[in-house]
Amino acid sequence: MSLMKRGLAELIGTFWLVLGGCGAAVFAAGVPDVGIGYLGVAFAFGLTVLTMAYAIGHISGCHLNPAVSVGLAVGGRFSFADLPVYVIAQTIGAIIAAFLILFVAADMGLFKEGQATFELTASSLAVNGYGELSPQGYGMVSGLVTEIVMTMMFLFIILGVTDKRGTAVAGGLAIGLALTLIHLISIPVTNTSVNPARSTGPALALAFSGEGKALTQLWLFWVAPIVGAAIAGVIYRFFEEPNG
Amino acid sequence: MSLMKRGLAELIGTFWLVLGGCGAAVFAAGVPDVGIGYLGVAFAFGLTVLTMAYAIGHISGCHLNPAVSVGLAVGGRFSFADLPVYVIAQTIGAIIAAFLILFVAADMGLFKEGQATFELTASSLAVNGYGELSPQGYGMVSGLVTEIVMTMMFLFIILGVTDKRGTAVAGGLAIGLALTLIHLISIPVTNTSVNPARSTGPALALAFSGEGKALTQLWLFWVAPIVGAAIAGVIYRFFEEPNG
Amino acid sequence: MSLMKRGLAELIGTFWLVLGGCGAAVFAAGVPDVGIGYLGVAFAFGLTVLTMAYAIGHISGCHLNPAVSVGLAVGGRFSFADLPVYVIAQTIGAIIAAFLILFVAADMGLFKEGQATFELTASSLAVNGYGELSPQGYGMVSGLVTEIVMTMMFLFIILGVTDKRGTAVAGGLAIGLALTLIHLISIPVTNTSVNPARSTGPALALAFSGEGKALTQLWLFWVAPIVGAAIAGVIYRFFEEPNG
Amino acid sequence: MSLMKRGLAELIGTFWLVLGGCGAAVFAAGVPDVGIGYLGVAFAFGLTVLTMAYAIGHISGCHLNPAVSVGLAVGGRFSFADLPVYVIAQTIGAIIAAFLILFVAADMGLFKEGQATFELTASSLAVNGYGELSPQGYGMVSGLVTEIVMTMMFLFIILGVTDKRGTAVAGGLAIGLALTLIHLISIPVTNTSVNPARSTGPALALAFSGEGKALTQLWLFWVAPIVGAAIAGVIYRFFEEPNG
Repeated sequence: MSLMKRGLAELIGTFWLVLGGCGAAVFAAGVPDVGIGYLGVAFAFGLTVLTMAYAIGHISGCHLNPAVSVGLAVGGRFSFADLPVYVIAQTIGAIIAAFLILFVAADMGLFKEGQATFELTASSLAVNGYGELSPQGYGMVSGLVTEIVMTMMFLFIILGVTDKRGTAVAGGLAIGLALTLIHLISIPVTNTSVNPARSTGPALALAFSGEGKALTQLWLFWVAPIVGAAIAGVIYRFFEEPNG
Repeated sequence: MSLMKRGLAELIGTFWLVLGGCGAAVFAAGVPDVGIGYLGVAFAFGLTVLTMAYAIGHISGCHLNPAVSVGLAVGGRFSFADLPVYVIAQTIGAIIAAFLILFVAADMGLFKEGQATFELTASSLAVNGYGELSPQGYGMVSGLVTEIVMTMMFLFIILGVTDKRGTAVAGGLAIGLALTLIHLISIPVTNTSVNPARSTGPALALAFSGEGKALTQLWLFWVAPIVGAAIAGVIYRFFEEPNG
Repeated sequence: MSLMKRGLAELIGTFWLVLGGCGAAVFAAGVPDVGIGYLGVAFAFGLTVLTMAYAIGHISGCHLNPAVSVGLAVGGRFSFADLPVYVIAQTIGAIIAAFLILFVAADMGLFKEGQATFELTASSLAVNGYGELSPQGYGMVSGLVTEIVMTMMFLFIILGVTDKRGTAVAGGLAIGLALTLIHLISIPVTNTSVNPARSTGPALALAFSGEGKALTQLWLFWVAPIVGAAIAGVIYRFFEEPNG
Repeated sequence: MSLMKRGLAELIGTFWLVLGGCGAAVFAAGVPDVGIGYLGVAFAFGLTVLTMAYAIGHISGCHLNPAVSVGLAVGGRFSFADLPVYVIAQTIGAIIAAFLILFVAADMGLFKEGQATFELTASSLAVNGYGELSPQGYGMVSGLVTEIVMTMMFLFIILGVTDKRGTAVAGGLAIGLALTLIHLISIPVTNTSVNPARSTGPALALAFSGEGKALTQLWLFWVAPIVGAAIAGVIYRFFEEPNG
């Protein structure tokens, strides 16, 4: 399939990842008594990947994440030449989703005419962050370490799951639930990124609403996931050597 | 298999979708301390589709939803000629389930002899709605946008999942959990429909109990899901062109 | 495999169903703040069946439930001659599990030397019941209707899922999660049985502790599940007719 | 593949099991209002195994647990000669993960310069224990019985699931969710081990922080899981006899 079509599928898929994961966090996590909490958000993020894996896996491979595309390229599973189109498409999809969330959330009075009147908590457009922006106040070093390790393990799992064609049926399940698991661990630390596109959308939409702090921390959520993913790409090659 | 048998399977399946999803919402969501909350309701709706996908998928295709039938027809996967029987069967199944819920709920004193003495909240027969009937007070435009986008993505996933026969084993899982995901996002907005039959049953049962407001909003939950589903049917054809 | 070995597998499996499902309800459901609630109990019951389906499905068929054995027999999938051994093995396994729960729970002071000093709530050995013993006070008619309909739909799903060999891989998943779903709906009504053996174990263990009320209601949890299962066995034959 | 590579895969996998399961317990379980609770921790542990089963199952068999390795050896599925390397690798992976959790948790002020200033609860590095260290105060006998029975059933499921090659696709799902189920039942009793390596990591990291009590109870979490696993290995052979 043409690179443009694959890019469009990545755009739609990443739109779904951010709309589903961050949308669940913004709309449903904190509702009193019946809210879905971090557990529901963790399932929401995982299920966006699980559902899209089966829906567009055969079209674009369903990366939905610049770090995944980088990790697969380093691991020898994806062409570096296709990387720019994938990353741009993923980022655009994430931005569109974040502004759609902003539009619906505004209807609830969470946001008011361009000025940030809301309390800056974990549920504010579900931005990623450290220090003041960490859901539980974890610092920059913890955030950096967590994002690197989580993305590294995410890519390690993806590379292992997609190693043998025989388990392709279970692949979407395993990779989607890997993302659920990662959120179960690390939402309190950085609100969990492991995905630069997922961090960029809400940070931009929040800056558009007049609050730019998340934008100043965005560098970490591009650096750490890509570093972690590249490490996994290198490590997993060790297990692929023909004569073990 | 004959259209009548397939219609009967759709009736039983949609009965299960409304009994399971709305029943969980009405009976179990709001129980203090141990209630299942929106997360449990989201799983309940998804698991009705997941279980029926494996139980009657080979009989009727397991649509359980007029919007799904329309979307599959627009996408070229289902005959427009069979549409009326499917939609009628689905709606009848949903109505029977809603009245069964009403019967059991009445036993708890939630309802009293034909007069609505209960507080009109998200758990009142689990009707869909906007404004006053939205679980968290979201307005009509938000409801309309949310239902269109959610149904569009639901159908996009269904069309993608059922595109290749090879992943049929995982199909019921992916589609069922797609509905779980959709509920995790949008219960607070419209109580989540994406399914006209699912909206019609509780709205009618509630009107029977003397409260007709949900019935006046029912138009949105027929229009938005069908519009969203048709859009997905058109979009997905783009990815099916033989030469990409 | 010999009937004795198949019966032993059913005994171990039903031991697991009651230990897992009722054990989770007794030990973990009501712990303040971090307890698993009805949602966790619903998953626990479902996962006992899911895990055993893959563990002993190839040995005994993994019924774990007299109503399932009856429903499969009526549906033409199981021999009536093997029914007594299966039902007795299932009931023995359930009773052993209930007394093991009693032994561990006693360590927490929930029970004291043969006299019932605990408050009779939904978490007291997780007995099934109606009226006073219903978790939310639902009456006998609601309990009867709920148990019949839930077991009927459970068997309908089981008969559908096991109809075609092609989806056998997903069978354990679908049937296990069907039981999760059934608990999400009906724990508040009867604490959910749909399984006479599951009701018998805790009722006997509770009577042993000096509280016999659950034993007097046990008839309903043998009658309703078996009636519902038999109905499903008859209905599903309609979909199996060679010329539809 | 070489034993060294298989050992390295076991090290990475057990690192993931402890980081994911204990990390979720320490960071996310007790967060007010939106915390994941025991249910989320149960899913976290299960998903570490589920994800690794598909990621490294083809490399090392994905034991991630000395008791599993012992049980498989007793059951005739694993070489006793490879046991030492596996057990050492698993224990090292668990210890690394526990110290990483300690590093990040320290950032939140949960721990201060070598002295244990935190309250010793279920969430303190997620150590296993009985009596004072049991999350709900269960005693040593309850802990011993629970760990033996839970590990025995865990191994019984693993031996059953991996008995027939035909269901290998669902194996990771069934075994991972078996561990989720086991946590749903027994977190309140011993914080759930069924895995000596999983117990050793946090106990050592906690001792390093100046609190050695968990270390004195560590014997139980080596003895009970291994006894339970060996029993399952013996029992399951009964079902493998060629002429039943």
